[in-house]
Amino acid sequence: MTLSLPTTLLRARTAIEPALHAAIERLDPDSRRLAHYHFGAGGKAVRPALALLSARAVGADEMVAVPGAVAVELVHNFSLVHDDLMDGDVERRHRPTVWAVHGAAAAILCGDAMLALATQVLLDVGTLDAVEAARRLASATQELIRGQHADLQFEQRRYVGVDECLAMAAGKTGALLACSAAIGAVLAGAPPSSVQALSTYGAELGLAFQLVDDLLGIWGDAATTGKPVGSDLRARKKSLPVAFALADSGPAGAALARWLGTEGPDSDSDIARAADLVESAGGRAWAAEEATRRLSLAESALVRASLAPDAVDELVALGRFVVTREN
Amino acid sequence: MTLSLPTTLLRARTAIEPALHAAIERLDPDSRRLAHYHFGAGGKAVRPALALLSARAVGADEMVAVPGAVAVELVHNFSLVHDDLMDGDVERRHRPTVWAVHGAAAAILCGDAMLALATQVLLDVGTLDAVEAARRLASATQELIRGQHADLQFEQRRYVGVDECLAMAAGKTGALLACSAAIGAVLAGAPPSSVQALSTYGAELGLAFQLVDDLLGIWGDAATTGKPVGSDLRARKKSLPVAFALADSGPAGAALARWLGTEGPDSDSDIARAADLVESAGGRAWAAEEATRRLSLAESALVRASLAPDAVDELVALGRFVVTREN
Repeated sequence: MTLSLPTTLLRARTAIEPALHAAIERLDPDSRRLAHYHFGAGGKAVRPALALLSARAVGADEMVAVPGAVAVELVHNFSLVHDDLMDGDVERRHRPTVWAVHGAAAAILCGDAMLALATQVLLDVGTLDAVEAARRLASATQELIRGQHADLQFEQRRYVGVDECLAMAAGKTGALLACSAAIGAVLAGAPPSSVQALSTYGAELGLAFQLVDDLLGIWGDAATTGKPVGSDLRARKKSLPVAFALADSGPAGAALARWLGTEGPDSDSDIARAADLVESAGGRAWAAEEATRRLSLAESALVRASLAPDAVDELVALGRFVVTREN
Repeated sequence: MTLSLPTTLLRARTAIEPALHAAIERLDPDSRRLAHYHFGAGGKAVRPALALLSARAVGADEMVAVPGAVAVELVHNFSLVHDDLMDGDVERRHRPTVWAVHGAAAAILCGDAMLALATQVLLDVGTLDAVEAARRLASATQELIRGQHADLQFEQRRYVGVDECLAMAAGKTGALLACSAAIGAVLAGAPPSSVQALSTYGAELGLAFQLVDDLLGIWGDAATTGKPVGSDLRARKKSLPVAFALADSGPAGAALARWLGTEGPDSDSDIARAADLVESAGGRAWAAEEATRRLSLAESALVRASLAPDAVDELVALGRFVVTREN
């Protein structure tokens, strides 16, 4: 099922565009140029949309969430710029990555500048709620870093357990989505129970998203994902479906473990066979079911809290779009 | 003249050690391990000492400055870890650098984590003064990044003017020293005039320090600097003495410009000859005089403000030590 980009995302992008642009203008000329190049590739603005909706969910005007929306988008893109370099990825959204065009050093500095800028955007608000938002964002950043450390290490290892793989995804994907889905409520001075519900929504959505992302990384087509078919398997990436399959005690799990111990180069049929092993060992079905389960945990968290119904409806629609995306 | 490490620096290191250690303990295990390795190499704690003295200079207990002292030290070391990678430096203080031991990706993440941690340490204080301190630190970080961008670009260029070289040094060295020398006063809620005087002290001290550092980078001996003799020249670094010499219209300036256009490899006598050209074109004498002038501007800023005399005495002694260091 292909869904069009929902109105929520388009509106969020429009709502934060002036503030994001103004923030980037504050950067030194070199970081600014690279940031413009990087943001020029587009992006879905999922995190800003969550931030804006979280303010509306607690009955506030979404404008109060704009600095939070800009800040989470900056931290997200700081991590993309640095991760692309660390992972050696030369392409993102069908364009060369920042480091591939401008070199490693400039990419490191541009990422650093975006990270520091996120703090500046929040602290310039000047309220104690904004300070709390900045603290949460810094914690989420540390979780992001923890997750990326783990992800890099997994590539060097032959076996990775499902639990540690989930913990990695909670850091790398869940933490910033949790922060995004709560930051508007924090900026609006909402009660802790509402903030917590929204944060849980974001965290569970993040895991659901990662499970789907990992499925697309193996079975998605290149036109959809913007990455070559099977690139995750080629990189011996211990994604969630792979981790589940590795824990399988049957012959498919054992054969997959053996293959992960080889070094390539891999033919397309090697990759197709590896994908079949993950599927035979139950990795594909488990990941799909787990994504559905996480999405329903996310939605339950919203329903249990006392939040504005129309914002909750939009959050639910956005979450389902993000998780079922094939765009 | 060799000076022993003054008491001020030793006391500062002791005063911030528990808080710095506690901050590092909050990092994810991988960043923590790398940060321990990096900090294990020692360091003079100049920035923490400035931070602590700036609180005493405005009549406050230096304990109020401890989070600021830890935060500036974290930002300084974030920049060292990233800069060593960008510059390809494999050794710092006679030990292999973080990236040389642990790889580029882990070094990027460790630096990122230290930068985010600096914000956390300040915001955890929970006062509006600490928010102001965090804003200043983020601005200084942006200046640091601006300076490093310029420094990297200078290496690719054949001509760099003295003014742009000073602007680069103001960003790369002056901004964080200015922030360090003011942050304790900011945390103590001191009046803007005192904060400004201390900030000016740090900024001018930073330029004096950089001038001396550049002199040592050409004429310092390896045992003192911890870097191979002439390594700045070998890297075709447009340091301040070199920029001054390049602007000289005489034969030495022209010969230096020609040599900078060559690519090496350089024999020791090539390097000695290049150093002589810098000296003949007046770069060495100018840099030494300019360092003295900047130091006296720094001291004047302190004297004009209403600050606690004994703290001012210690700041002056610390500044002179830092600038005349051959250790």
